[in-house]
Amino acid sequence: MASHYVVRDVDRADPAVIAALRDAGVATAHEAAGRIGLLGPSIQARQAGSAIAGSAITVTCHPGDNLMIHAAVEVCRPGDVLVVTTTSPSTDGMFGDLLATSLLARGVIGLVSDAGVRDIASLRGMDFPVWSRAVHAQGTVKASPGSVNVPVVAAGQLVRPGDIVIADDDGVCVLPASRGPEVAAAAAKRIANEAEKREKLAAGTLGVDMYNLRPLLADLGVEYVDRLPDDGRA
Amino acid sequence: MASHYVVRDVDRADPAVIAALRDAGVATAHEAAGRIGLLGPSIQARQAGSAIAGSAITVTCHPGDNLMIHAAVEVCRPGDVLVVTTTSPSTDGMFGDLLATSLLARGVIGLVSDAGVRDIASLRGMDFPVWSRAVHAQGTVKASPGSVNVPVVAAGQLVRPGDIVIADDDGVCVLPASRGPEVAAAAAKRIANEAEKREKLAAGTLGVDMYNLRPLLADLGVEYVDRLPDDGRA
Amino acid sequence: MASHYVVRDVDRADPAVIAALRDAGVATAHEAAGRIGLLGPSIQARQAGSAIAGSAITVTCHPGDNLMIHAAVEVCRPGDVLVVTTTSPSTDGMFGDLLATSLLARGVIGLVSDAGVRDIASLRGMDFPVWSRAVHAQGTVKASPGSVNVPVVAAGQLVRPGDIVIADDDGVCVLPASRGPEVAAAAAKRIANEAEKREKLAAGTLGVDMYNLRPLLADLGVEYVDRLPDDGRA
Amino acid sequence: MASHYVVRDVDRADPAVIAALRDAGVATAHEAAGRIGLLGPSIQARQAGSAIAGSAITVTCHPGDNLMIHAAVEVCRPGDVLVVTTTSPSTDGMFGDLLATSLLARGVIGLVSDAGVRDIASLRGMDFPVWSRAVHAQGTVKASPGSVNVPVVAAGQLVRPGDIVIADDDGVCVLPASRGPEVAAAAAKRIANEAEKREKLAAGTLGVDMYNLRPLLADLGVEYVDRLPDDGRA
Amino acid sequence: MASHYVVRDVDRADPAVIAALRDAGVATAHEAAGRIGLLGPSIQARQAGSAIAGSAITVTCHPGDNLMIHAAVEVCRPGDVLVVTTTSPSTDGMFGDLLATSLLARGVIGLVSDAGVRDIASLRGMDFPVWSRAVHAQGTVKASPGSVNVPVVAAGQLVRPGDIVIADDDGVCVLPASRGPEVAAAAAKRIANEAEKREKLAAGTLGVDMYNLRPLLADLGVEYVDRLPDDGRA
Amino acid sequence: MASHYVVRDVDRADPAVIAALRDAGVATAHEAAGRIGLLGPSIQARQAGSAIAGSAITVTCHPGDNLMIHAAVEVCRPGDVLVVTTTSPSTDGMFGDLLATSLLARGVIGLVSDAGVRDIASLRGMDFPVWSRAVHAQGTVKASPGSVNVPVVAAGQLVRPGDIVIADDDGVCVLPASRGPEVAAAAAKRIANEAEKREKLAAGTLGVDMYNLRPLLADLGVEYVDRLPDDGRA
Repeated sequence: MASHYVVRDVDRADPAVIAALRDAGVATAHEAAGRIGLLGPSIQARQAGSAIAGSAITVTCHPGDNLMIHAAVEVCRPGDVLVVTTTSPSTDGMFGDLLATSLLARGVIGLVSDAGVRDIASLRGMDFPVWSRAVHAQGTVKASPGSVNVPVVAAGQLVRPGDIVIADDDGVCVLPASRGPEVAAAAAKRIANEAEKREKLAAGTLGVDMYNLRPLLADLGVEYVDRLPDDGRA
Repeated sequence: MASHYVVRDVDRADPAVIAALRDAGVATAHEAAGRIGLLGPSIQARQAGSAIAGSAITVTCHPGDNLMIHAAVEVCRPGDVLVVTTTSPSTDGMFGDLLATSLLARGVIGLVSDAGVRDIASLRGMDFPVWSRAVHAQGTVKASPGSVNVPVVAAGQLVRPGDIVIADDDGVCVLPASRGPEVAAAAAKRIANEAEKREKLAAGTLGVDMYNLRPLLADLGVEYVDRLPDDGRA
Repeated sequence: MASHYVVRDVDRADPAVIAALRDAGVATAHEAAGRIGLLGPSIQARQAGSAIAGSAITVTCHPGDNLMIHAAVEVCRPGDVLVVTTTSPSTDGMFGDLLATSLLARGVIGLVSDAGVRDIASLRGMDFPVWSRAVHAQGTVKASPGSVNVPVVAAGQLVRPGDIVIADDDGVCVLPASRGPEVAAAAAKRIANEAEKREKLAAGTLGVDMYNLRPLLADLGVEYVDRLPDDGRA
Repeated sequence: MASHYVVRDVDRADPAVIAALRDAGVATAHEAAGRIGLLGPSIQARQAGSAIAGSAITVTCHPGDNLMIHAAVEVCRPGDVLVVTTTSPSTDGMFGDLLATSLLARGVIGLVSDAGVRDIASLRGMDFPVWSRAVHAQGTVKASPGSVNVPVVAAGQLVRPGDIVIADDDGVCVLPASRGPEVAAAAAKRIANEAEKREKLAAGTLGVDMYNLRPLLADLGVEYVDRLPDDGRA
Repeated sequence: MASHYVVRDVDRADPAVIAALRDAGVATAHEAAGRIGLLGPSIQARQAGSAIAGSAITVTCHPGDNLMIHAAVEVCRPGDVLVVTTTSPSTDGMFGDLLATSLLARGVIGLVSDAGVRDIASLRGMDFPVWSRAVHAQGTVKASPGSVNVPVVAAGQLVRPGDIVIADDDGVCVLPASRGPEVAAAAAKRIANEAEKREKLAAGTLGVDMYNLRPLLADLGVEYVDRLPDDGRA
Repeated sequence: MASHYVVRDVDRADPAVIAALRDAGVATAHEAAGRIGLLGPSIQARQAGSAIAGSAITVTCHPGDNLMIHAAVEVCRPGDVLVVTTTSPSTDGMFGDLLATSLLARGVIGLVSDAGVRDIASLRGMDFPVWSRAVHAQGTVKASPGSVNVPVVAAGQLVRPGDIVIADDDGVCVLPASRGPEVAAAAAKRIANEAEKREKLAAGTLGVDMYNLRPLLADLGVEYVDRLPDDGRA
């Protein structure tokens, strides 16, 4: 028999670490962590310019049923990010402005959903940022069980309760809370390093020189020619 | 033999009812009607912040052919919404700023298309809102017959001529004109009801209490625990 | 054995012709050229309101590997547009703000990619427009060879080095440089012609009359009726 | 309020007409009817070589819930085809060998589903043919209402209770029962006509001659040349 | 920094339990486990009639790179099933008959891949069953690191090394090894139970009676009528 | 102005070379050519066990219009393969058993189509193999111009008239005729080489040893461990 749980306690990462990762952004945090943790591009930002990071409260629902989102609100704390999945693919609008109002009252800072959201104009007006698979108004029921704060898979990525969720215009990245400090430190180095690189590139230095790629290109047999020698077939 | 018609007369709903449903919006009207009428999420708003409602003038075209859109203009009246479909899937840009100019001259307030639109920057500049499956510039011909004002299927939803079309950032919903007054009344009640709910939720009341979901959760066997008891497999 | 080349020299079209095609825009240039050259709608504008035209510098990469983009920078000149493809489908974020900085330093005016981009907020802030299949932060390696300035296929369309690339909110169109002057002239005529048509349509003239479509509709057997005669099956 | 019905009585077409349309097959019936009635290619035959026709018993279910399929069995009669849809997109395996056993006991001859099926090896072994959007084992609940024998949309096509459903390796086509005799007659003519054409084509006659297409090709400006005159850009 | 591992030791489930689950099949095992563990329908059987179960050896590769599959062979044992994923979506043909030969030599009984396979005619001839996202011949390189026997996500489902993998014509299901005995027992009960149900249904008993669904239908407001009372809008 | 051509003369490759490449098969020819020429996996074999190679006769059609396929038959010769594309995406059934009969009369050995086919049961019965994007019965018109024997793009791959088309259960690969002899020779070597490898692998030699991959794995930092050292996050 399947068991359904609402797990109340979640270990959350240090707020300072979370803030540092939010400022680093999705792309930098993902790289700093060794290219892990990205949700697939099917989950997209549904507003422009929002950048958040927080602790994951995870939810798994029956498709077309948002009962467990309601159950999840109670265990949320300020700074959390709600991560919603369904047991089979769905684009239903299982989240809208009423749930956002409720989450804002708990201090939740955003939603990541592998299904649909609705009332998107209101959500934008409320400054409650969402990342979702779809915008769709399809109504849902409250009839089937699911779980809160169990490991889930969203857009092809495992998300555990308490994971650090970073989301911005590039999408969504999750990291184990335990790796937060190390990744935040690596991200800070990377940012400094990139500033320097950016300056060089802006001044006209080529990446093939800056990264010393010419020997690799030669090793791989890439030939430099003035004109394409043959029939030009790609 | 298939027959092709341009049907001139369409029974339209009461403008006051239509206006009430526009103000209610797609999500509320869909719910007030008993969760019917939504077009699928493949048809998306191609601008932000537009909200319209009007009577459906329906068009069915051969793929890659916009002849029947031209034929449809003549039967449009102020306040109508053009709903375009193709007999097989297409993303061609069969609608652009010239057709929008022509429709605006007839008082048409927007387009819903299960194919592509082009000149999207101009359409946004003209304040002519469109909901479509794609933005694509692919040119089309005028060579094959189709029909105007016959029942069509757009994004998985049946649309009849004269149906009330409601469209906003959440997508598109259609309703039979005959159900308009009843749905508008139900939507008004729902809006009042939601205002009250919103206030409670903003004040910290939980949805599980407001909707009395705790007994249901218990009946469904959802257990509240402090920590996940087993290996945490979702 | 497959050969990998970086081709240094590309014949570019006349800048005045390129500018004329940029001003004409994607939809008009595509029509003026005889409805050719459009990339499929899977490649979309990732900002609103940008309109560019330039000479194609083409790149083909191994999926998940952006080595050849780095190699391509060196052969770019002011006014060029980088066109990136992969040897099999990919949505990885193989292009971000560092590469954009480097391209801006070379005078490159935009990117068309059949894969993903990242740092999208920064790219928008830098006014470096991109058209791509995805926004995704997935990091890539620099390990496998590819080519620069060979013919490639992007979103189902053949693109040759030196092709004129036109990109705006409607998508992307490419034309052989040799056809540029003829297409620019045809586009100018079309624009004049459309201004006249637009005025007529705005004044209430119907397209079926302006394009003389009534005889065609009759020939195709389209019947005008006041009411649908049968069971209304579309 | 949405209403949910199980409609007991359905007007069925003449069995001789249905049999004639089954023998004609999907492609011929679709053409004979004037190119109407086809379900989209997302619904595919899940076995090879089955060809059926029968009267549609329609079902609409909540996604992830097969309650209404159980309710539908009772109103089925020998020769019927069950047509299952969901109120929002789903690939769940809401139909398997137990339901097939029950339908076979009622004389039902096949299933068309806009969702998933499971136990596919058993279904093949039982000679119960299915056309579906997916094969997937995902289990479903019995918790939400729906309707039996109301009009539904399956794979983009309106299906009414009692419609003639024709299904074979090419897919699925539906026709209003009232049009059955006329379409069966047209199909018979078409089959005779095609036999004659097939003989001519097999003997080497060209379609361009048999259909007299050369004047059309000339009118459309298609030029016959020995070699491609320009740079060969398609 | 990301770390890449080849983990040698995996705890495997009891062969008798695995065999029982293979005989139960994907749909029954998934239900017996409480409707968990299914991989999405994007991973399909690439042959008909194969049914296997074994212990998961997991692999994660860079897209377009099959280096780590070669590394995985060494840690496989008789009865294992190889589960291959990529760090971003790929349909490349990273597995073919040479790798199958190598796996057969190790006693591996099948492949589940979230990417592509090739040499499919040979694989069928060798009786080496595969479940994959695609059949595609695209060649791959051996240049980037990955891991063997770490948790992976395949078609939206978490798979851990040593999980019991069950695969047949319905798709693929995975279960934690620790739950094997309990699920096998539940499956045996379910099979017995279904045999009884099948007999009743074959004899004409209705599911609505056998499952006692009539009270539920009444509670949910489903009305039984002889004819559809209104305009028949679904 | 777009021009439309039927090009009569096509340079075909040596039949012995074509036969050698057919026997090598898609995967081997693609590898022997340096991993080029593959059509994407959206074009699939619509029968099992067919393997062909021939010279490409290319066709480009308006979507929903098969006029140009009829025009193409005349320029086909024994041993040719017809390659059909549309100017925008289409799944319409523009090819069926009558056209196959006509092509068989000309000695054409198969069809590759980036659109749909119908009469699939008949095509299988006639032993006329097809590779297509879809099986769909949707009827098409004969109204719009296109071209025969110009370069086209099918499933993301450039195909030129006279290219060698190789198709089997793995999909479709195209090669320039000029490269045929060299690729056939390389394929022969590869086949001999693979036979030897197959024997070694069947005898238990590991690929990591046969390809000498252990140093590469070490260089890339892949660690061999008995147990996963950390939290096992993939």
